[in-house]
Amino acid sequence: MMKKGTGEDEMTKLYRNTKKTTMKTRRARIFLTVVLAFVLVLVTTAAWAADPLSSWNDGPAKQVIVKFVGDVTREGDPNFVQPAERIATFDNDGTLWAEQPMYFQLAFALDRVKALAPQHPEWKDKEPFASLLKGDLKAALAGGERSLLEIVMATHAGMTTAEFEQIVKDWTATAKHLKTKRLYTEMVYQPMIELLAFLRANGFKTYIVSGGGIEFMRPWTEKVYGIPPEQVIGSSIKTKFEMKDGKPVLMRLPEVDFIDDKAGKPVGIHKFIGRRPILAFGNSDGDLQMLQWTAAGSGMRFMGLVHHTDADREWAYDRKSHIGTLDKALDEAQAKGWTVVDMKKDWKVICPFEKQ
Amino acid sequence: MMKKGTGEDEMTKLYRNTKKTTMKTRRARIFLTVVLAFVLVLVTTAAWAADPLSSWNDGPAKQVIVKFVGDVTREGDPNFVQPAERIATFDNDGTLWAEQPMYFQLAFALDRVKALAPQHPEWKDKEPFASLLKGDLKAALAGGERSLLEIVMATHAGMTTAEFEQIVKDWTATAKHLKTKRLYTEMVYQPMIELLAFLRANGFKTYIVSGGGIEFMRPWTEKVYGIPPEQVIGSSIKTKFEMKDGKPVLMRLPEVDFIDDKAGKPVGIHKFIGRRPILAFGNSDGDLQMLQWTAAGSGMRFMGLVHHTDADREWAYDRKSHIGTLDKALDEAQAKGWTVVDMKKDWKVICPFEKQ
Repeated sequence: MMKKGTGEDEMTKLYRNTKKTTMKTRRARIFLTVVLAFVLVLVTTAAWAADPLSSWNDGPAKQVIVKFVGDVTREGDPNFVQPAERIATFDNDGTLWAEQPMYFQLAFALDRVKALAPQHPEWKDKEPFASLLKGDLKAALAGGERSLLEIVMATHAGMTTAEFEQIVKDWTATAKHLKTKRLYTEMVYQPMIELLAFLRANGFKTYIVSGGGIEFMRPWTEKVYGIPPEQVIGSSIKTKFEMKDGKPVLMRLPEVDFIDDKAGKPVGIHKFIGRRPILAFGNSDGDLQMLQWTAAGSGMRFMGLVHHTDADREWAYDRKSHIGTLDKALDEAQAKGWTVVDMKKDWKVICPFEKQ
Repeated sequence: MMKKGTGEDEMTKLYRNTKKTTMKTRRARIFLTVVLAFVLVLVTTAAWAADPLSSWNDGPAKQVIVKFVGDVTREGDPNFVQPAERIATFDNDGTLWAEQPMYFQLAFALDRVKALAPQHPEWKDKEPFASLLKGDLKAALAGGERSLLEIVMATHAGMTTAEFEQIVKDWTATAKHLKTKRLYTEMVYQPMIELLAFLRANGFKTYIVSGGGIEFMRPWTEKVYGIPPEQVIGSSIKTKFEMKDGKPVLMRLPEVDFIDDKAGKPVGIHKFIGRRPILAFGNSDGDLQMLQWTAAGSGMRFMGLVHHTDADREWAYDRKSHIGTLDKALDEAQAKGWTVVDMKKDWKVICPFEKQ
């Protein structure tokens, strides 16, 4: 629409100029009118040719999204929002890519334990590593959060940031999901990728705000989602600046820096962005505070939840799931009229490879 | 230059179209040629009319900057850098605005102590507040870092983020520097503001990376420097998400979260941006690690230091100053050929108001 406006305006000016010039022949006027008509047809056709949300069924979710974006971007509309304030934040696990039967970052950590085991002979007799190496995930995680933290620190710390980035790149380029046999970065949601692009085309800045590791996401989010590293917010461990062989490096320390989940999400948003989002999308109770924080701003707001309802094409889970529990946030969404996307009904396809 | 290219291209296309149309009269062709020539003259004049770094003298510093920006933005140049990677980081105190005779944020904290004193009768007998309220700054700060931290926490914590933002806005709109009687936001460096704009016009993303408080800077950096809140990195205290009268707020806690100074600067850059800058500018030893981190990347790099050499128009200080100590970083800059800006020789004006 922006393009159409500009084109029209410039052509109109050109047209008016012809009246002032001494060469205002009928032929020149007709010529410009023809060009003007041609440009208008071209621009209009281009704008209408493709539905930017073509993987969404024409249900209420899509309608609310399209109306919201239309309203906040239409100059003169009472709900108009300046481009600089068009901040959109998205959870990652379960919102932009799948999270079953375990968070993909946990699959990464388990693969790393196996890869690192030869350098750690002591792991054979040390939990949670001993159970993990025997393939008994349940026993390994029996120690709860402490076991998980040990696994994370053993696999995510102790190297430079550049080394870790390369490890993540190698893993995402080769590791396959056990059920689908697809690369993890293929198990992303096509309708959400379209939504991200649609928002950016309308002047939004799209951010990830995830409980997952910031450095686990940044190496691939630009390629997969079009989200650059500086727009990825996540959990982190501390890093330390050091000189190593005369070169400065950042060493990754086995110490939690920030947990970007639940009440941590608004904290992360405020810390990294310093502006309140006008649109936020999540899929679990871990996103509730981000949605509340977004809703509490003035003016028109959009709060969305992806509800996993499709056991055939993806997974179906909500209130009782240990991963991606959607309970309190679902109640609040229903009470406050937030948009709940029914994956089964609202999405024509789930992952990009289904379109091929 | 971009505009010129586009203008030429569209007009050329329009011109070519005339050959295909059935109405290719000589008159229409002449008309378009005249328009084309007119547009070219207009665009060229606009591009050459103003020197974007007009407050810089034509010395070596300006030459290095202009050459660097030219090289990294010229497609086909061996030093060409994709726009997404054109990250530029700037220290704030002493680099973008003045820092004498005390950091402006300390002046803010002292003003806040005075403003809050009526609510804290106990301060009359409690250091460092008692000395401060008597106007004895030296005695107040005799306790070193601990005293400073007490002053900062008493004045920067205990309110919501929205309340603090308003306090900073009110202060920057009214408080005057004791020596110059100017607003603090007027005591910014015109040549650096021109450099920031010049970089952005060439596809750079400009960031602040300061030891100062992130929330002390964000309320005014967009207006003063053209740097939006999401591109401001600084020191911070922790915040906590809470419901207050049914509304979500972020409470500012009296607990240090992150110190964005010295070895903390590369940590902050990596945490917030996730990319290494190709240009960095500081003025003190607190910026040395940021400059080292920037220099260690591959490809062409620019490392700059503002050297305060102008006792008449600003202040002159370096190795022995307690504020903005420039000692080790000056040695390293000289040894490695980094650009050292001599404020007295390189800058035609220091602050914007001198131009008025």
